[in-house]
Amino acid sequence: MEQVCFGIDIGGTAVKAGLFNTEGKLLNKWDFSTQRTEDGKDILRDVAKFILNKIEELKLPMESVIGVGVGIPGPVTDEGQVLMLANLGLANFNIEKEMSEMTGLKVKAGNDANVAAMGEYWMGGGKGYKSLVLATLGTGVGGGIILNGHILSGSNGAAGEIGHILVNEEETSSCGCKKQGCLEQYASATGIVKLAKQLMADSKEPSSLRGKEDLSAKMVFDCAKAGDKLALAVVDKACYYLGLAMAHIAQVVDPEAFVIGGGVSKAGEIITETVKKHYNKYVIDSLKDKEFKLATLGNDAGIYGAAKLIIA
Amino acid sequence: MEQVCFGIDIGGTAVKAGLFNTEGKLLNKWDFSTQRTEDGKDILRDVAKFILNKIEELKLPMESVIGVGVGIPGPVTDEGQVLMLANLGLANFNIEKEMSEMTGLKVKAGNDANVAAMGEYWMGGGKGYKSLVLATLGTGVGGGIILNGHILSGSNGAAGEIGHILVNEEETSSCGCKKQGCLEQYASATGIVKLAKQLMADSKEPSSLRGKEDLSAKMVFDCAKAGDKLALAVVDKACYYLGLAMAHIAQVVDPEAFVIGGGVSKAGEIITETVKKHYNKYVIDSLKDKEFKLATLGNDAGIYGAAKLIIA
Repeated sequence: MEQVCFGIDIGGTAVKAGLFNTEGKLLNKWDFSTQRTEDGKDILRDVAKFILNKIEELKLPMESVIGVGVGIPGPVTDEGQVLMLANLGLANFNIEKEMSEMTGLKVKAGNDANVAAMGEYWMGGGKGYKSLVLATLGTGVGGGIILNGHILSGSNGAAGEIGHILVNEEETSSCGCKKQGCLEQYASATGIVKLAKQLMADSKEPSSLRGKEDLSAKMVFDCAKAGDKLALAVVDKACYYLGLAMAHIAQVVDPEAFVIGGGVSKAGEIITETVKKHYNKYVIDSLKDKEFKLATLGNDAGIYGAAKLIIA
Repeated sequence: MEQVCFGIDIGGTAVKAGLFNTEGKLLNKWDFSTQRTEDGKDILRDVAKFILNKIEELKLPMESVIGVGVGIPGPVTDEGQVLMLANLGLANFNIEKEMSEMTGLKVKAGNDANVAAMGEYWMGGGKGYKSLVLATLGTGVGGGIILNGHILSGSNGAAGEIGHILVNEEETSSCGCKKQGCLEQYASATGIVKLAKQLMADSKEPSSLRGKEDLSAKMVFDCAKAGDKLALAVVDKACYYLGLAMAHIAQVVDPEAFVIGGGVSKAGEIITETVKKHYNKYVIDSLKDKEFKLATLGNDAGIYGAAKLIIA
């Protein structure tokens, strides 16, 4: 009888779920929207119910299901303790213990960014490396660190908060975290658009980005690849900030590889190549020329990584 | 029969050795100078001979000696592989395997800065914390990271190289590593003296530091504690760079505590307090108000930490 497990990725608006075998093959996947109620724990109950329904529906013998891995949008300690889950209005509970009681299954939980890093490590862009740092460039910038196959969670589950590393002390506008000059302000999709607007305002360089009302990070990268000088300067600036932050990170944890994911990473190797160029300027010789890879699992990184939490 | 182990700290000019029981009591300690010969491995043979002689001299039954921990001035992987030991002219060998063959004992090795962090974690300023980052402020700035009781070595043994984190992009003079603007250029003993000279040249502020030929970091801190404004500004600047680098570090590994050691740390709480003030400005809320402690083991941190490598 094949052993299987569930990988669940709980987001603010939707839950993604995957059924995996222990070799990492995704056998089935689903998603459903997150129901917001007075009690944030209803979401956990919904997830538990979903899992038990699927087990019944698919006629999976209970003893073949080795557990449920869960990624959640907030800090979790190695012991499953959740200090604060602002998105779901929850705080101070042990998600592993509670969901295990709800399902009768072994449950392991992790922060969503860390869990995505685990997914890319197991079956994605970081496959084959023992340690890596995943930078997820989306609306914000998230990070997850895998060392010798384990998530680096930190003492309060706040390790890998690389989006809030200071990279520009001159910045006057504030990040969502209320500090100024965070990596997220430049290397996220919104940050790249903002950088483009700034560069357009500060120069007279003609550019096909000018006059576009619905300017997006994708447009910036597309124009850069077509040779647009101003767009290239925007890409270079965003990748400079990323390379600088990754140099700081390398001098702390010395990973084998950096993996770049999130919507922005769809731009491809222009990012990894440009980041690497800047990174090499800011690290000591023994840390130069690390591997820079693109993530390959897209939105499924979370369910893969969640499943891997269960598969030792 | 009490179980004991040796903690050895191999430096460029001297070897320190300690005999410990498994509770971390230092039973005996010695040091001897490093003999430089054509073959760098002669130092390892000298250390092995020293240990075997002590076992004989102290009439220790071989079965009571559970092993030898060794700290060395260069990167070591978790498996004991040494890539480069420039100080001793050695490269590409497994120090654990070779020293184990020389002594007939179990040998575990680590980088000296990491091993010192282990010592402070076990029996020093970081006792009681599960994870910590040690910053050693001496001639240079070294770092060691302990997570859940284990050294974070990194993929090439280069984790914790915090002295080379970029903290000042305006810097034009070069660090020993050939980059510009490394933490080590401001927070080491020599860096603090250089900062003082710069501030004196750049201002007309009267100061008791002026005209001192043998200016030292200790003098800067002494004058700062006596209320000298310029000296206070120097301390503030050095601690700003340290606090900024520690904010970067926290956003990567989220330790429970920072421990500050090395000769400069003898200045006391003026350092931990000033660093903490700056640190809090550069981290997200969930990482604020970490513990900032002074190291307590001084030059013995290395032998303590080396011994702890053997005591699981």
